[in-house]
Amino acid sequence: MFQDTIVALSTAHGVSAIAVIRLSGKDCFRIVKKTFKGADPETVPTHTIHFGSIWDADRMLDEVLVSVFREPNSFTKEDSIEISCHGSPVIIKEILKVLLQHGARLAEPGEFTKRAFLNGRFDLAQAEAVADLINAETDNARQAALNQMRGGFSKQINHLREELIHFASLIELELDFGEEDVEFAKRDDLRALIVKIQGYLRALMDSFDQGNVIKNGVPTVIAGKPNAGKSTLLNTLLNEERAIVSEIPGTTRDVIEDEMVLGGINFRFIDTAGLRETEDIIEAMGVERTRDRMKKASLIIYLFDLMLTSLQEIDKEEAHLQHLGVPYIKVGNKLDRADKELITRLTNRDFIFISAANKTNIQDLKEKILSYFQVKTVKTGDVMVTNLRHYHNLQQTYDALQRVLEGMAQGITGDFLAMDIRQALHYLGEITGTITTEDLLGNIFSKFCIGK
Amino acid sequence: MFQDTIVALSTAHGVSAIAVIRLSGKDCFRIVKKTFKGADPETVPTHTIHFGSIWDADRMLDEVLVSVFREPNSFTKEDSIEISCHGSPVIIKEILKVLLQHGARLAEPGEFTKRAFLNGRFDLAQAEAVADLINAETDNARQAALNQMRGGFSKQINHLREELIHFASLIELELDFGEEDVEFAKRDDLRALIVKIQGYLRALMDSFDQGNVIKNGVPTVIAGKPNAGKSTLLNTLLNEERAIVSEIPGTTRDVIEDEMVLGGINFRFIDTAGLRETEDIIEAMGVERTRDRMKKASLIIYLFDLMLTSLQEIDKEEAHLQHLGVPYIKVGNKLDRADKELITRLTNRDFIFISAANKTNIQDLKEKILSYFQVKTVKTGDVMVTNLRHYHNLQQTYDALQRVLEGMAQGITGDFLAMDIRQALHYLGEITGTITTEDLLGNIFSKFCIGK
Repeated sequence: MFQDTIVALSTAHGVSAIAVIRLSGKDCFRIVKKTFKGADPETVPTHTIHFGSIWDADRMLDEVLVSVFREPNSFTKEDSIEISCHGSPVIIKEILKVLLQHGARLAEPGEFTKRAFLNGRFDLAQAEAVADLINAETDNARQAALNQMRGGFSKQINHLREELIHFASLIELELDFGEEDVEFAKRDDLRALIVKIQGYLRALMDSFDQGNVIKNGVPTVIAGKPNAGKSTLLNTLLNEERAIVSEIPGTTRDVIEDEMVLGGINFRFIDTAGLRETEDIIEAMGVERTRDRMKKASLIIYLFDLMLTSLQEIDKEEAHLQHLGVPYIKVGNKLDRADKELITRLTNRDFIFISAANKTNIQDLKEKILSYFQVKTVKTGDVMVTNLRHYHNLQQTYDALQRVLEGMAQGITGDFLAMDIRQALHYLGEITGTITTEDLLGNIFSKFCIGK
Repeated sequence: MFQDTIVALSTAHGVSAIAVIRLSGKDCFRIVKKTFKGADPETVPTHTIHFGSIWDADRMLDEVLVSVFREPNSFTKEDSIEISCHGSPVIIKEILKVLLQHGARLAEPGEFTKRAFLNGRFDLAQAEAVADLINAETDNARQAALNQMRGGFSKQINHLREELIHFASLIELELDFGEEDVEFAKRDDLRALIVKIQGYLRALMDSFDQGNVIKNGVPTVIAGKPNAGKSTLLNTLLNEERAIVSEIPGTTRDVIEDEMVLGGINFRFIDTAGLRETEDIIEAMGVERTRDRMKKASLIIYLFDLMLTSLQEIDKEEAHLQHLGVPYIKVGNKLDRADKELITRLTNRDFIFISAANKTNIQDLKEKILSYFQVKTVKTGDVMVTNLRHYHNLQQTYDALQRVLEGMAQGITGDFLAMDIRQALHYLGEITGTITTEDLLGNIFSKFCIGK
């Protein structure tokens, strides 16, 4: 149990109808009592709401609703209070100030969730999913995070851990009798068990391809020579999307200029300069940066200007593209004004012909884009790996088990095998937080927003 | 009682720990019941909070807290629910969508407060104060709005109304006996009563000078010739302020580039082009626009470049300034590099000498600025007029009473006097909303944010 009481604004910044200030910790009832005229938080039942006013000495700051949560029945499993006040930044600041004066401390990013984790509300993978849930940018990402928060992934990790512990216990038993050279566990059975566990690990790791795309989106570069129509295409893609996004008035978030959700995937466009061969050093640096970004992208939409490009040039540019080793889509732009013969020659060469300006065949392009990154719709209860940290730990668990297999093949003794098995357990334990360090926790929770 | 159930996001947009979606109306329990797995809102006590999950058919959308408010013990005096979900725009949108599918309707701006008014929670002036409270940009503005929301101002208006009704009843009594030429009310007593009421009205109207500055801030122009240092001064003023504003981390709202709170007043800087005489037509238009903005400002901070300006030029520019009829502060900038003799000659001419770049004497300038707009600190319970609509109506009430006075002096009969008194009552009634029209309400509530 923590000794101090933390406080933070938990709703988004900005002028709004209401804002919620959250407190958690053993003194939170006493602190609020000093400033709240209304019911006494210490005596009212848990999960009840009380109208009243917040005061700083003789200044009434606002009329509010105070919600009382008694430990362990709160998010943090500590005594908690939510103050629902009018959504003015001035009011929020004044109320926070008076709560700080009365002994609360401003929460660090993610500190509410960190307390929830440390007080045993959920494990580390579930805590991480809380942040993923808040930051979800597509419905698929929301569902994947929600499933993880509800413990589906953790359950599988715990299952793997149990299997490994079972295995370890067999090996460690041998160690106790080390001098006598007993083999309690048949080597063939052990090998089969490890291969089975590796199979589970592999299946989870394989889900990361989808999980990563769902959670982090697809970094996409629209490239091509200057005036090939890159900006026009980007605007055409984004504008169509914007019209869809805003179907419920008042819920449109600020549209991020370079994101488009397609087929449940967030395509994040990376801005690049036009590619052309140049003598100019500054411009050459720009081109170099573009090539670098293309290499790091997960998808390149490459625009050819059908009015100006010759077959030779196309061949040359495509050779460059192939060299990068990144999936790319060849798009012939300005279809309406293109050379008919060029188009005939490009048949069967897997081109998408569009006119970005006239919005012709944009749907074809979208379907092509999606053909590279089909994700299935995430359903309630589906389990997948979306977190790079988890993926790495799964990989390291797998590798440790591989060393066990190899050791066994080489007839290595139980004590050496046990070391690798303990390593495997360690990596698995870090995922759910049965094993943690301050560094690991600091690293995870500092990425949360304040108030969560 | 309204037939439909309204819903809206009530917290600010953006990614955050939590967001609150509010519903109000007679079907809100039934609507939430269709999508919420948890306690049944129809059977739980009012002012209680229930953990559960929101579903769209077989898709779980989020884990949430549902707060239940039973009529008439809610903000709108209707059955109401607040859903506290994770603060992801995707989640908010999905939950709103499912609530709309189940029969809720998206609330219009201010519709919750409008219902609260129409259902008799408070009067119109109090409802207007809710918006002022949310939009308060200084602590004084917050306190003034809170006082008005709590009914201090309304109480005074109602008192005036009672006095006027008393007066009207005396006059109307005479009308019933019109033929008989009776005078129930002594004309001298009537006159004294009107003068007393006018005194109250005047006192309220006088408070608008302060109230307007507190609520709306002071539009301020920094003017001067090109390169006099206008931008440097603005940055110096704003940067100092910004450091103060951000004293509580995590509570700083996005700093608006051209606002500064000083002495409890929000000074809103209006951007202007440099003033110089020019032959260039386009530039001349810019200068014209600047002069226009200067005329509309409440304060001009006029910068003279002490390195380049001569006494003659100063005299000429000051003549222009006087002509505008707006309070202005003469500031000599670039003090560190100024001509000593010029400074000597400017003594006793009410100049503030500064160096904007070196931040010299900025405090003197701030004190000078404040000397034009001293406001007293608004205390809990203070009454003042902050709303232009109210001010206009008070003025029209006053004018109508003036016509009554004049009519009495001219010996006009009671039925004519009664007409003006009814007018006075009408204007007063519009302030608190005892008299309203759809236009008036539409006009007031459309300026609210959605969700309030």
